[in-house]
Amino acid sequence: MKIFCAIALNERQKAILRNGLGAIPSVFADELKEQQRLPEFLRSDVCFGNVPPSWLVLGGHLKWLQLESAGFGEYQNVARNTSAWITNLKGYFSGPVAESALAGILALYRGINTLTDLQRERKWVGGALRPHLRRLENSSVLILGGGGIGQHLKKLLEPFEAEVTVFGRQPQPGVITKPSELDEVLPAMDIVASCLPETNETIGLINARRLRLLAPHAVFVNVGRGSVVDEPALIALLQEQKIGGCVLDVTAREPLPPDHPLWSCPNTILTQHTGGGFAEEIDGKVYFFLENLERFKKGKEPLNVVELEKGY
Amino acid sequence: MKIFCAIALNERQKAILRNGLGAIPSVFADELKEQQRLPEFLRSDVCFGNVPPSWLVLGGHLKWLQLESAGFGEYQNVARNTSAWITNLKGYFSGPVAESALAGILALYRGINTLTDLQRERKWVGGALRPHLRRLENSSVLILGGGGIGQHLKKLLEPFEAEVTVFGRQPQPGVITKPSELDEVLPAMDIVASCLPETNETIGLINARRLRLLAPHAVFVNVGRGSVVDEPALIALLQEQKIGGCVLDVTAREPLPPDHPLWSCPNTILTQHTGGGFAEEIDGKVYFFLENLERFKKGKEPLNVVELEKGY
Repeated sequence: MKIFCAIALNERQKAILRNGLGAIPSVFADELKEQQRLPEFLRSDVCFGNVPPSWLVLGGHLKWLQLESAGFGEYQNVARNTSAWITNLKGYFSGPVAESALAGILALYRGINTLTDLQRERKWVGGALRPHLRRLENSSVLILGGGGIGQHLKKLLEPFEAEVTVFGRQPQPGVITKPSELDEVLPAMDIVASCLPETNETIGLINARRLRLLAPHAVFVNVGRGSVVDEPALIALLQEQKIGGCVLDVTAREPLPPDHPLWSCPNTILTQHTGGGFAEEIDGKVYFFLENLERFKKGKEPLNVVELEKGY
Repeated sequence: MKIFCAIALNERQKAILRNGLGAIPSVFADELKEQQRLPEFLRSDVCFGNVPPSWLVLGGHLKWLQLESAGFGEYQNVARNTSAWITNLKGYFSGPVAESALAGILALYRGINTLTDLQRERKWVGGALRPHLRRLENSSVLILGGGGIGQHLKKLLEPFEAEVTVFGRQPQPGVITKPSELDEVLPAMDIVASCLPETNETIGLINARRLRLLAPHAVFVNVGRGSVVDEPALIALLQEQKIGGCVLDVTAREPLPPDHPLWSCPNTILTQHTGGGFAEEIDGKVYFFLENLERFKKGKEPLNVVELEKGY
């Protein structure tokens, strides 16, 4: 068995990985010349990290690809033409993403972004800001997506006694499942937070018509995928201050180019797709891979084989 | 009965108040010439809002002063020389202050202040920020003060499964009561949040020696009173990046002058004493006063008579 490591690791993290691998030979993509990478990949049995999807259908003898992401949309097409297991990091980012979503919401509600701007100007406004602040307590929140992020965000909102509605796939109390039901509940929401993956059903779900159903004070949050929302329509509403604000971890284009209108939209917090990040993130990925490798070595199916049809 | 209104209200709020008062005559300080204010106050039976403390000992016939604040330290000395009831807004600000405290903590942990600065520069950093972000989950938090704010903050931290220690007056599990015990627990804390009022026991409690006990990554939060902490020592630690950061709603001087070193301390969020603010704040104060006035009119003691000896 030979392992190809495409994930970017620092020396300390490489040492953790090598130590865990023991006698199993491994190569690190970033230690190879560019033209060596694909041939080495094709000679490997296991790959750790996100290689170009096209590599999977070039006739190598890969048996298992452990992605370093939760998302795997770009592998959906090629995956049908490989017999290798593809596993992802499903759930791994739910906690940090939910914390970032709440951080962004609370920042807007309690004026942290405005106060940060004032701090750079060394300008005290103080009391005059107070009527512009909001309480999160007792707010109405619609969480789009009943997966790991949505569930975690719901948990974090509990002590605020927020009234949470979930748009998900599993019908149960407090969960709506039909897009038509969205239209009914959207006008009553203080906060709409999308934690949806990109699938055929979710692309464009929050279209211009639905965005216009939002209340003038409503905050839109997107920590799922940028394609879920009609971004030009969202930008227009923000610029005209017809909604209360937004928190975007994901956008249609990433990185956002310097001239993009989102940078200067009012009441907008852009978290630059950092939502899943935390200090121990990469170490944790290495440990997860090593644990999953133990299963693979024993001939068991590794954890988190992706469900290609569902797309998440 | 005649009512003197020192609280600043807009016309809508004045209408709510006048409507609630019915036939009871009232005067609003901001509708009087400056030299008329004190004489009108001295002719009044009830005052709503924070007048200069010295006015209370000038021989008027005030029977009840309803403060518009929770804090009443500046009235402690004069209060002994008046027979009027002094009531405050104890607990009224606990929820919003706790929300602002959590907003500030999450902003530091999830990089919202850094991202806000980058947004002004239209600069995408993205993934490179991720190792600098932290998870609030499972953190160790010391809450200084077992009152309304501290209790509310503790509640908001529950879904993060934080390990919370409270420094308070009522001994119970999870509560420490002695300053000597502080020294033992401070080094282990990820977050130390002061929600303490200003009293003889709290002034200078977080002195330079105790600040130096904080871990290099620790975040110090102060949403109580600025005098609790040795501010120059705190500033030195922040500037030398010997602690992880701070969130300050209160400072020794307010407003902070433009040349104050706190404006530019690293990893510092200054919320400019807005913590208690929310859109419905003043309306709610009017409603509270009107409800308390019903008690007063029936000869009952109004709610929230301040405890002068305790100072909170």
